[in-house]
Amino acid sequence: MKVNLGLIGFGTVGSGVVKLLRENHDLIEKRTGAALHLKKIADRDISSDRGVNVDPKILTTDVETILSNPEIEIVIELIGGEEPAKSYIIEALRRKKHVVTANKVLLAKYSEEIFKIAKGNNVQVQYEGSVAGGIPLINALREGLVANKVRTILGIINGTTNYILTKMNEDGQSFEEALKGAKEKGYAETNPALDIEGIDSGEKLAILSSLAFGTRVDMSNVYTEGISKITIQDIKFAREFGYIIKLLAIAKNTNQDIELRVHPTMLPLKHPLASVRDEYNAIYIEGDAVGTTMFYGKGAGQMPTASSVISDVIKVALNMGNTISYPNLIWGTKKIKSIEEITSRYYLRFPILDQPGVIGKIGTILGEHDISITSAIATLVEKQKNEGNVEILTHETKERNIRSALKEIDELPMMWGQSLLIRIEE
Amino acid sequence: MKVNLGLIGFGTVGSGVVKLLRENHDLIEKRTGAALHLKKIADRDISSDRGVNVDPKILTTDVETILSNPEIEIVIELIGGEEPAKSYIIEALRRKKHVVTANKVLLAKYSEEIFKIAKGNNVQVQYEGSVAGGIPLINALREGLVANKVRTILGIINGTTNYILTKMNEDGQSFEEALKGAKEKGYAETNPALDIEGIDSGEKLAILSSLAFGTRVDMSNVYTEGISKITIQDIKFAREFGYIIKLLAIAKNTNQDIELRVHPTMLPLKHPLASVRDEYNAIYIEGDAVGTTMFYGKGAGQMPTASSVISDVIKVALNMGNTISYPNLIWGTKKIKSIEEITSRYYLRFPILDQPGVIGKIGTILGEHDISITSAIATLVEKQKNEGNVEILTHETKERNIRSALKEIDELPMMWGQSLLIRIEE
Repeated sequence: MKVNLGLIGFGTVGSGVVKLLRENHDLIEKRTGAALHLKKIADRDISSDRGVNVDPKILTTDVETILSNPEIEIVIELIGGEEPAKSYIIEALRRKKHVVTANKVLLAKYSEEIFKIAKGNNVQVQYEGSVAGGIPLINALREGLVANKVRTILGIINGTTNYILTKMNEDGQSFEEALKGAKEKGYAETNPALDIEGIDSGEKLAILSSLAFGTRVDMSNVYTEGISKITIQDIKFAREFGYIIKLLAIAKNTNQDIELRVHPTMLPLKHPLASVRDEYNAIYIEGDAVGTTMFYGKGAGQMPTASSVISDVIKVALNMGNTISYPNLIWGTKKIKSIEEITSRYYLRFPILDQPGVIGKIGTILGEHDISITSAIATLVEKQKNEGNVEILTHETKERNIRSALKEIDELPMMWGQSLLIRIEE
Repeated sequence: MKVNLGLIGFGTVGSGVVKLLRENHDLIEKRTGAALHLKKIADRDISSDRGVNVDPKILTTDVETILSNPEIEIVIELIGGEEPAKSYIIEALRRKKHVVTANKVLLAKYSEEIFKIAKGNNVQVQYEGSVAGGIPLINALREGLVANKVRTILGIINGTTNYILTKMNEDGQSFEEALKGAKEKGYAETNPALDIEGIDSGEKLAILSSLAFGTRVDMSNVYTEGISKITIQDIKFAREFGYIIKLLAIAKNTNQDIELRVHPTMLPLKHPLASVRDEYNAIYIEGDAVGTTMFYGKGAGQMPTASSVISDVIKVALNMGNTISYPNLIWGTKKIKSIEEITSRYYLRFPILDQPGVIGKIGTILGEHDISITSAIATLVEKQKNEGNVEILTHETKERNIRSALKEIDELPMMWGQSLLIRIEE
């Protein structure tokens, strides 16, 4: 079976797709029966060298050449961002072409609209490359775990921040040094704010949780807190309690509602996610039947993402004659909690002048807010100034209570700095 | 869309499937559009309580009731073993019913025959539950990684042996103690030889490598070596060199041939598989595009396996109207290496009488067999008897050479016991 493809976007991932289509064309055909044929590539820039040989005749700067080509059955969109990608995808669907995309931003924001148009035109949209690069995660959630109520998703789904935290943890680098290294390695963008502040993880979490819970989720529902304030001291303190700090994307499903959040998190050293190092991604999923599972691999990069894009192309190709398929639609509604409504265990640190009764004072205020303590340690930071820290681990507690208690404590005259909070997952 | 199912085998996994179909029926229908309806359950024993309520009218001791029922579109086989499971499956396929099975033994041995009959009758066979329980691994290999040349598979795919090795490693239990614990926890069978000697892992590896390499593989192609000879001393020695011992199922694909083996393996402590503990399974897969990935979860048990079985049922249901589908067939042939032809790094231990020149003597013999050493340590075991050990790590070496060298060394008069070899993966 011959399948004709059009590619929009000849950047890093686009040229990876072209390379992989060339190298493994025969293997893919033997495995699946589908002979993938790239008819056209559209990009604004068709003269730069991408390190892959392409017949100049298939290159065009005019996307319409792809959209209007009746032979092209599947359009691969790899330009990213909102516009013009969104218009191209919608136009392709309207002309009854299937679409494969790795466009996380678009899916986090417009999935409902896009899937509706796809359904109306009886064509498919696939998007494995949009989350966790080469890891077949969308496939696992939608098909492999289809029989499960998903209880929990804990994801390391941003390679840049995991690389930075690994360097801080293992090599004692400061946040700034580690960020510089990430830029040099090409993991971090020139403007890395979207990664570091947790926005990128939040968008991916929105896609995953829409899929897992069948509820419309967009970025405004996801609480995000980045890693730019994490210091080596925080990492060392965490280690003393037997924890490692990771930027986690967290989704939890109770029967009534769901919670969605991205923030630095203390994980026990024995947790499967604790040993996920460098730029790797891993997603830990708990289902009611399957128990705990984890999916690990490269969450970005040219060839891993190309691997996912082509797996989507094959999925579409082998389903083109199929009238029924895995629906991509929203099938339920769940209330989404605000961050104040969640409960968690907490690590709290209070920079406080060392004097008798400080633990008692803080313990009393926490107690008044209904917060139970599992351990408390006071240490001296600078003897001359009498500055110390009180570190506290709490039982499961309401975030609302923690916030009120911290506000009250921060106003105490004996504080020489601001209190700090890191949420804990067990 | 209503889908009628017949279940053959009402044991542990069978009753898990019934339970899960009941609990998540509505969720599955919302997600997929498929309303799964269990028409009949056949088992020799239809009177024991399985902890799940079933209308007695759907129970039967006569499998023919299922096979001859024209309404039943999908037959789920969960009795396991070769016969009568094989005959039931073949008969179901001949009557144009799709089959979902978790029967590892059958697939490792008769997959070619079974898939051929399925294809001839234009029906599907799915088998996600046959390897690694709840982990959607077959799906990942066949679909998610379809664009990749698979280079390497390293799998912890037997929960019993991983549990035993974990208890030996972490709690200092002897092999016998740990095995007893595994039996008490229900992880090990009364006769645990199939697990412990690596046969179970070998069968699963045969299934995975047929799929990954498109080559017919059966158990006779897989070299197996179990963990019953591993002692706490081996584990301690490994740790001193920075390694942990795991029972790995290993498949490697060079361009010319493949190698397939199951044996205790020393893994660096930072390897993603090193932290897989207790009865958990994990499969590390390296593809040319995707790089390294890993899939982790419960490799056995009632509900995890039921999760995979139902995901297969959905896959079949959503593809019943599809004329093209992922083929299950053998699409290539690869030469399979014998164990003597492989190369690896090795940990070697020689129980040798402590006297000047022992490292030199052993080093010379290894050198004569073209084996290079990366480190060598001599230690005294029992001073009075003058008994010591020489431990050696080698560079990448041919197994054939190692075997000849060990044979020669074992005949030296200065040996007070047999030499030991553990292969290393980096």
